[in-house]
Amino acid sequence: MSGEKYESKITKKVCVTFKESEPGGQEYQVTVPAGSSILQAAIAAGVHLQSACGGKGTCGKCRVILGGQDRGKPMPEEEKFLSPEQIASGVVLACKRTVESDLDVLLIQQKDVYDRKTKLEADHNYELSPLIQKHVLEVDIPSTQDQRSDWERLEAKLPVANTPLNFNRALAAKLPQVLRDSSFQVTAVTADNELLAVEPGNTANISYGLAIDIGTTTIVAYLLNLTDGKVIARHALTNPQQGAGADVLSRIAYAAENPEGLSQLQTMVIDSLNQMILNMCQEKGIKPEQIYQAVAVGNTTMSHLFLGIDPTYLAPAPFIPGFRQAVTIKAAELGLNILDNGIVTLLPIVAGYVGSDTVGVMLAGRIDELKGIHLLVDIGTNGEMVLVGKGRILTCSTAAGPAFEGAGIKFGMRAAEGAIEAVKIDGDVHLEIIGEEKTKARGICGSGLIDAVAEMYKAGIITPEGRMPTTKSALDKLPPALRERVLNNNGNREFVLVWKEQSATGENISLTQKDIRALQLAKGAILAGIRILMDRLEVKVEDIDQIFLAGAFGNYISKESALEIGLLPKVSPAKVQSMGNAAGNGAQMALLSSAEMVKAMFLAQTAEHVELSAAKDFQNEFLNALTLGQNY
Amino acid sequence: MSGEKYESKITKKVCVTFKESEPGGQEYQVTVPAGSSILQAAIAAGVHLQSACGGKGTCGKCRVILGGQDRGKPMPEEEKFLSPEQIASGVVLACKRTVESDLDVLLIQQKDVYDRKTKLEADHNYELSPLIQKHVLEVDIPSTQDQRSDWERLEAKLPVANTPLNFNRALAAKLPQVLRDSSFQVTAVTADNELLAVEPGNTANISYGLAIDIGTTTIVAYLLNLTDGKVIARHALTNPQQGAGADVLSRIAYAAENPEGLSQLQTMVIDSLNQMILNMCQEKGIKPEQIYQAVAVGNTTMSHLFLGIDPTYLAPAPFIPGFRQAVTIKAAELGLNILDNGIVTLLPIVAGYVGSDTVGVMLAGRIDELKGIHLLVDIGTNGEMVLVGKGRILTCSTAAGPAFEGAGIKFGMRAAEGAIEAVKIDGDVHLEIIGEEKTKARGICGSGLIDAVAEMYKAGIITPEGRMPTTKSALDKLPPALRERVLNNNGNREFVLVWKEQSATGENISLTQKDIRALQLAKGAILAGIRILMDRLEVKVEDIDQIFLAGAFGNYISKESALEIGLLPKVSPAKVQSMGNAAGNGAQMALLSSAEMVKAMFLAQTAEHVELSAAKDFQNEFLNALTLGQNY
Repeated sequence: MSGEKYESKITKKVCVTFKESEPGGQEYQVTVPAGSSILQAAIAAGVHLQSACGGKGTCGKCRVILGGQDRGKPMPEEEKFLSPEQIASGVVLACKRTVESDLDVLLIQQKDVYDRKTKLEADHNYELSPLIQKHVLEVDIPSTQDQRSDWERLEAKLPVANTPLNFNRALAAKLPQVLRDSSFQVTAVTADNELLAVEPGNTANISYGLAIDIGTTTIVAYLLNLTDGKVIARHALTNPQQGAGADVLSRIAYAAENPEGLSQLQTMVIDSLNQMILNMCQEKGIKPEQIYQAVAVGNTTMSHLFLGIDPTYLAPAPFIPGFRQAVTIKAAELGLNILDNGIVTLLPIVAGYVGSDTVGVMLAGRIDELKGIHLLVDIGTNGEMVLVGKGRILTCSTAAGPAFEGAGIKFGMRAAEGAIEAVKIDGDVHLEIIGEEKTKARGICGSGLIDAVAEMYKAGIITPEGRMPTTKSALDKLPPALRERVLNNNGNREFVLVWKEQSATGENISLTQKDIRALQLAKGAILAGIRILMDRLEVKVEDIDQIFLAGAFGNYISKESALEIGLLPKVSPAKVQSMGNAAGNGAQMALLSSAEMVKAMFLAQTAEHVELSAAKDFQNEFLNALTLGQNY
Repeated sequence: MSGEKYESKITKKVCVTFKESEPGGQEYQVTVPAGSSILQAAIAAGVHLQSACGGKGTCGKCRVILGGQDRGKPMPEEEKFLSPEQIASGVVLACKRTVESDLDVLLIQQKDVYDRKTKLEADHNYELSPLIQKHVLEVDIPSTQDQRSDWERLEAKLPVANTPLNFNRALAAKLPQVLRDSSFQVTAVTADNELLAVEPGNTANISYGLAIDIGTTTIVAYLLNLTDGKVIARHALTNPQQGAGADVLSRIAYAAENPEGLSQLQTMVIDSLNQMILNMCQEKGIKPEQIYQAVAVGNTTMSHLFLGIDPTYLAPAPFIPGFRQAVTIKAAELGLNILDNGIVTLLPIVAGYVGSDTVGVMLAGRIDELKGIHLLVDIGTNGEMVLVGKGRILTCSTAAGPAFEGAGIKFGMRAAEGAIEAVKIDGDVHLEIIGEEKTKARGICGSGLIDAVAEMYKAGIITPEGRMPTTKSALDKLPPALRERVLNNNGNREFVLVWKEQSATGENISLTQKDIRALQLAKGAILAGIRILMDRLEVKVEDIDQIFLAGAFGNYISKESALEIGLLPKVSPAKVQSMGNAAGNGAQMALLSSAEMVKAMFLAQTAEHVELSAAKDFQNEFLNALTLGQNY
């Protein structure tokens, strides 16, 4: 290859324009090296495409529309995941298409409805004692009899507990002028021995903090008034890292394999947070620099990506995190748009797959105060379980797979507009669909999936082993309205939830035998993990006083259905309760109370992690737990 | 004024080119707003012009040469400070000339000879125990039985004294890869509980530190090998802040009055240090990131400017510093080109005019070990005095004025090539001139000035009151060779040291009656300060066991002359000794020994500062101390 050719190849750049489909939708332009995939261009442009596999071509989610001249022939993966009608209308998979010249890409609209049921939490039941303190000071005026430095005369007026102050160059630099401009009447903002700000006059009644819950799917930020502990705003955004894959393993791979991958993923989270901070501040008429502290939680991978710590070795066994301790750093170092000098605290981590979000859940569950035996379950792509009792805290995690979040399921989707979220079968099929009235179904989300399988199991459409009827005699036992919904697709059975005439996409929306298998694997992993923890703590099902379901998923699933399919040990439904957004609540508690922050560290250190991959009895428990309704 | 005009006025830029006069000399170009002075352009270009008054036009030092077409008429200040010959050859004052269009400026060569007598210090007499420690670690390899984070497994191998380590995001970010790339065999670099670096393999024998002495006139940097305590290189540069004035008050005014002034002055020091670091590293074949710590000293103003702390309120009474404590910050925050993560420590400050350099002098003088009564005197533009005895440490400072540094003296100059540095009068005048043999005199520096006045006083050319003979009968008492050197210049007497035929400038080099007055004021202030300290400690001249002279000036002046004119209390010359570059030595000691660093803090806290401006008896002492030879 000649040098000239080589050079032209590496330097050719192309421009990709992403357009939102609705009227008045935004455009996003980005310049990328020729040969980049549309998905890579989307990530570079900050456009959030769904992607569950991180560009491997195995999830079929990263759909966009190309104009007629740009389509070419469908790729094999597109023929696999897309209907002929979709292909005809220009839908392609963004990860499978490379950009060789300037290109326009039409985005497929999907309204995010993560807000469907949540509300602002309030009424915390603990002492308001934030780390952030404001001290209104009357500083001594200098004289030849008192030639102490400005820093010393400020420090002398602070409570002994806050001194000696750590030196802060940026504040010391301006302190002489600030003191004199305010006639030596100032308000000092401290966090332990750190001086965060020196404000002219008395600003004691202005103090804000941020609680952050970094989910793999959704990032939620809460703005709190630190003077009364109230949540005054809550914003959420889809985690833009989605483009690099729906699950943490895809994101770890993205960070490990791309030179700038880690920094890109970090920037995405920080940018999203900054956008929410700006919006909440405008909404509430406050300034970002009046936010003095942020407390964040997230799973171990999200925690690493948030701080920009190499997550590579979280992926392979033995799943080693870079750090586990609670970390406090300056907002400016992270680029988080609160007070530059403000502090960002990430709650501690327990293990490679039991993150600070789980510690937040423990905090919100006040597990140190519980008497008896209690189980906390946080289900997402990964399931984290915490079993508390006998003075011990046991944790484990299982890779439940993405089925509960709608990935790996033929018509699976996130809990967004058009998703089936609840299913009832009583001779016929009744559905609840996310969105306004008469919204047509586009797919099924996790809670709908659990409902559907539970109802199908109860109705005898599937056996305890998870099989759909294959013989005529078995089919004949079903009521006709259900029988006709069981289709035989080249020997692969599927159960139609929505006929194509009623669906938003023009195709049948069904659950396949493979989908049911995926759900069995997911629920089996969770239940097996719980059984291992029960074994290690030497407790039986009847010993369990309560099961708490944490996270958005825990808010939405039907307890009955979860018990019916055997996702949880067979306790009375009365013993199962939702904790709401427990991880985020834990972050809020640590923000509002230094005692809770200390407790978080204590809980993380006390927790004993059980590594299921090293547990000899896990495989056996897992095989048992695959059975539907198996609540042994 | 129309908008257009206004705009064109504020946006017009002109290009100034500074050229060094010697063959092969460098050029420096800078673009500045039209209307800037040449001095401002020089500061912006990083060109170091002498300037004692900071651009007020009162010192006449900032001389440059303009081409014939650019000269115009001489300014009044130029007629005052420059000879007709100089004006004819194009010499102008840079502060008095504004640049309205592109301009070439010829620089007047002045070789810096601060190196004339100093040598590398060595043979420190204290334990080598730097704060910087290197730990060669064999870190435990992870397993499912040992799932601790990488940070924890590193920390576990460190001595307990260094733990718990403060979290360092940048190091944690790369730690997983560093550990695995080096098969878990690393060298950790610590400073107390700070982790500074994790290096692959065993690097225990590579460790460097920097000692920095920031003088108002000269910045000196010493590169030390922390494994054996040896100084391996020493570089010095003229402090480029000179352009903003020779003395600290001019620099404070510059920082206070120019919006970017403080940041400019800070950048100048840091840039100079970075240049020296780069040169020393190249010279010695080491990398800047192998320098882990820098310890700096400087007077209080220099200390503030080094850290970028507002020095404004150091200037007016009651002379309040922004900070006094020892300060440690990250090199990256300061922009100092050692390891980014390396630490920079500034020794503590005692008062507005007794800085960390004086603390360095105390350390180098080992004043905590001295028995009896000892006086330390550090003379520059300001004189700092330390009187030690009876278990106390008393300090004071006086604004000696710039006479000792050659400023404010008609032919005064820095101790550079062509400066008269020693004078002997024995019937005729004998001189020593800095530079190679046969170098012609261009002016007189501080040590020469003290010698000259002492010798003139001894020879009867000036009276104890400092007057030169004005009557014929008084003149007739002098030997003819001296008598003819006393000129009457419109009633103003002057004493010719070098006749114009022998001088480098073609004009007589003389001491004027005004020069002698300036010296009297300077030495009177020093002596009065010493007397006040002696009064406060209740000691008499005969109680003094030793007088230490610190700083470059102390190295060069003749003890006999200093005693002769009454700069110091009248002790035996045997009791007076030079300390060498004591401030820089103190910085080296604190770098090489944690115990010395702690001692520095103790000494600064123990020191009692006597504010002379508030001392009722100072005026009286000062008036007495003006008399030459007055060693009461």
